[in-house]
Amino acid sequence: MISQEIIRELAVEASTKIVMLVMDGLGGLPKPDTGLTELETARTPNLDRLAYEGSVGFHTPVGRGITPGSGPGHLSLFGYDPVRWQIGRGVLEALGIDFDLQPADVAARGNFCTVDANGVITDRRAGRIATDKMEKIVQRLQENIPEIDGVQIFVRPVREHRFVLVLRGSGLSPELTDTDPQREGVQVPPVEPQSPAAHQAARVANEFVARARALMKDQPQANMLMLRGFASHPHPPSVTEVYKLKAAAIAVYPMYRGLARLVGMDVVPTGSTIVDEFSTLAQLYHQYDFFFIHYKRTDSTGEDGNFDAKVAAIEELDRALPDLTALKPDVLVVTGDHSTPAMLKAHSWHPVPALIHSRWCRADRVQKFGESSCRAGSLGILGPTELMTLALANAERLTKFGA
Amino acid sequence: MISQEIIRELAVEASTKIVMLVMDGLGGLPKPDTGLTELETARTPNLDRLAYEGSVGFHTPVGRGITPGSGPGHLSLFGYDPVRWQIGRGVLEALGIDFDLQPADVAARGNFCTVDANGVITDRRAGRIATDKMEKIVQRLQENIPEIDGVQIFVRPVREHRFVLVLRGSGLSPELTDTDPQREGVQVPPVEPQSPAAHQAARVANEFVARARALMKDQPQANMLMLRGFASHPHPPSVTEVYKLKAAAIAVYPMYRGLARLVGMDVVPTGSTIVDEFSTLAQLYHQYDFFFIHYKRTDSTGEDGNFDAKVAAIEELDRALPDLTALKPDVLVVTGDHSTPAMLKAHSWHPVPALIHSRWCRADRVQKFGESSCRAGSLGILGPTELMTLALANAERLTKFGA
Repeated sequence: MISQEIIRELAVEASTKIVMLVMDGLGGLPKPDTGLTELETARTPNLDRLAYEGSVGFHTPVGRGITPGSGPGHLSLFGYDPVRWQIGRGVLEALGIDFDLQPADVAARGNFCTVDANGVITDRRAGRIATDKMEKIVQRLQENIPEIDGVQIFVRPVREHRFVLVLRGSGLSPELTDTDPQREGVQVPPVEPQSPAAHQAARVANEFVARARALMKDQPQANMLMLRGFASHPHPPSVTEVYKLKAAAIAVYPMYRGLARLVGMDVVPTGSTIVDEFSTLAQLYHQYDFFFIHYKRTDSTGEDGNFDAKVAAIEELDRALPDLTALKPDVLVVTGDHSTPAMLKAHSWHPVPALIHSRWCRADRVQKFGESSCRAGSLGILGPTELMTLALANAERLTKFGA
Repeated sequence: MISQEIIRELAVEASTKIVMLVMDGLGGLPKPDTGLTELETARTPNLDRLAYEGSVGFHTPVGRGITPGSGPGHLSLFGYDPVRWQIGRGVLEALGIDFDLQPADVAARGNFCTVDANGVITDRRAGRIATDKMEKIVQRLQENIPEIDGVQIFVRPVREHRFVLVLRGSGLSPELTDTDPQREGVQVPPVEPQSPAAHQAARVANEFVARARALMKDQPQANMLMLRGFASHPHPPSVTEVYKLKAAAIAVYPMYRGLARLVGMDVVPTGSTIVDEFSTLAQLYHQYDFFFIHYKRTDSTGEDGNFDAKVAAIEELDRALPDLTALKPDVLVVTGDHSTPAMLKAHSWHPVPALIHSRWCRADRVQKFGESSCRAGSLGILGPTELMTLALANAERLTKFGA
C-alpha cells in the first residue's frame, strides 16, 4: 500500500467525476445446492454489462483473513489506512446516531443496568428496557446534567438499554478505562485515567455517573449505568485536502453518513430507497467530483442469513442502475465494504468483488459480475486502500511518481 | 515486499546467468476497433514461445494506481524500493546526460532565462535559445567558474535553454530552495538553505549565479539563470553488495545507463539498435552474471500515441530475440518499467506484462505474450521489487529464509 502522504503529493485537480457505489456486505458464499453465490444467483444485466466493459477483481479492506467492521471497511474504500485510522467504539456509536461529533469531543457507549442496594450488578442490560422508557431516562439525565465543571455533557438515546455519552471541553483525553465488568455480581468500577492527561476527563465521567445514579435511584430497571469505548474522533485529513475532491455522500443510515463526514464529505439529504439515492445523485451531479453511494440492504439481508432476500436486494439495485449509468461518470466503482455471506449470517473475511468502469480500464470481457468471474479479472486481489488509488488514476487525477 | 536487507542475507553466489530485458513502456491498452493491445496486436512468435514455456503475469513497479516515472520504474525492476530510493530531478537530469555523478555531489537542473534591466524575468525560457548557442554560454561559464571556495563547479549543456549544474565538495547539502518562481514579471530569488547544513551549498550556488550573470550580461536572450531540483545521488548499495551479482547494463539512452550505474552495474558501450544490443550481450556473456538490456522504442512510440509504430517496435525486438535466446540464459525476464499505452500517449498506472523463463518456473502454456494471457498467468500481479526476487530465486541465487 502506497502511503496517503504520497498519494496526496500526486493528486491533481481535474474535471472528471468518480462514483463509488458501495453495496454493503456484497461478497457472498455459494449456496450448496447451486454452487452459486448471492451475486451469481441474482439476475443483474446492468452490473454484468459494466463487468464486461470494465476491469473486475476483488479488494481486501483490511487484509487477507481479516473480517472488517463497517468503519474500517469504509475508511479503506475511501483510501484511508484502516489500521492507522482506528475508530473507537464510542465514536462509532455517536456517528451511528448522526451526532455531530467535534474533534475534541470524548464519546463513550453507555449501557443502563440494574444494581441492588449494595450497588452490585444484577442485570447488565437493565432487563433490555423498552426504547421509549430509556429515552425518558436519557432526557432526564440530559436536562439535569447539562455540564460538569465547564465540560458540556451530551446524553443521547440509541436503542433499548443503550445510549451515547459525549463530553465536550478543552484538553479532554479519551484514555479512560471501561466501567463494564462484563459480568454480574460485582459493583460498577469507577472510570480510571490511563494517562496523566486523562485525569480531568475521568473526574468528569465519574461525576456524571454519580449524578446520574442519584437521578435514577427510583427506577426499577435502569438504576445505574456503565460506560465503555471512550474515544475521540480521529480527524484524518479530508478527501479535499488529500485528493483535491469535492465529495458528496449519499447514504440512508447514520453510521455511513458519519463515516463519510469523518473524511470531509458533504453528507446530503436523500430518500430511503436506491431509486431515491440515484435521484439525489442526478440532482447533485454537477456540484461534486466524487460521490459515495451507500446501499444497505445487501448487508442486512446477509446478516439475517436470508440468501434469497440478499439476491432480491442485489436485483433491486441492478434494476435502478440505469439511472446512474445514464450520467456516464468518468469512473464508476461498484463493490462492497466487506463480504456478508448469507451462509455465515455475519461480516466475513472473504475478498469483496469489485469492478472499475472507465475509459482507461482494461476491459475484462467477463460475462457476469460475480465471485467466479472476478477471479479471472485484471484487478487481481487489491490490498487495503488500493481501490481508491485506482479510481483516482482512472479519473486522471494522479500525476507520475518520480521523473 | 520483502526488504532488500533480507534479500541480501539470502543471496548466494552461483554460476547461473540472468538476463532482464526491459521493453520500456511495454504495457498497453486495447485499440477500440480490435480489442487488442499493442503487445497483443504484434506478431511475436519468439516472445510467445517464451510465454508458453515460462510463467507470465504482471508487475506493479510502485503500487496499484501509481504511474511510475522512469527512475522508480527501473529501481523497482532492479529490486530497490522506489519509495525509499527517490531520485531528485537534478540527479536524474545529470544521469540523463551521462554525467558521472559522485555520491557527495549536489546536482541541479538549470534553465537560462531573460531578465530586464531591473532583473525582472521577461522570458523564463530565454526564447528557447538554440542548443548550439546555449552550449557556447555553458562553455564560457565552465571555463570562467571552475571552482568557488574550494567547491568544484561543473556546468554541462542539456538542450535549448536547459543545462545541469553540479557542485562537488565535502559536506554540501542539497536541501536548497528552487530559484524558478514559475512565472514572469518577478526577479529570480536567491537560493535559500532549508537546513543549517545547507548554508555552504547555498552560498556557493548564489555566488555561481552572481558570477554567471556577470558573464552573460551581453547576451540578448540568456542573460540570467534559474536553478531547481537540487539533489544528491541517493547511493543505494550496489547489486554486487546486495545480490552478489556482477552486472552489466546494455542501454542506448543516458538516463537508463545512469540508473544502472546508480546501482553499481557496469555500463558497457553498445550500438543503437536492439540487434546491436543483443550482439553486445553475446560478446560479454561470459564476463557477467546479470544483464540489464534496455529497449527504448516501445516507450517513445507509445508516448507519441502511435499504436502501429509501437506494434512495429515490439515486432522488431521479437525478430532479434533468437540472438538472445541462443545464449540460453538460466533466467530470462521480459517486461517493461511501466506501461505507456499509445491510447494515453503517456506513462500509465496499468500493471506491466511480465514473463520469467527458466528451468524452474511453472510453464503457463499460454499461447501468446499479452495482457489478456498474463491475467491467467501464474505470476499474478507482482508488487514492487518482487520480479527481481523471483529472478534470483529462479537462478538459484537465494537460500532458504529461516531453518
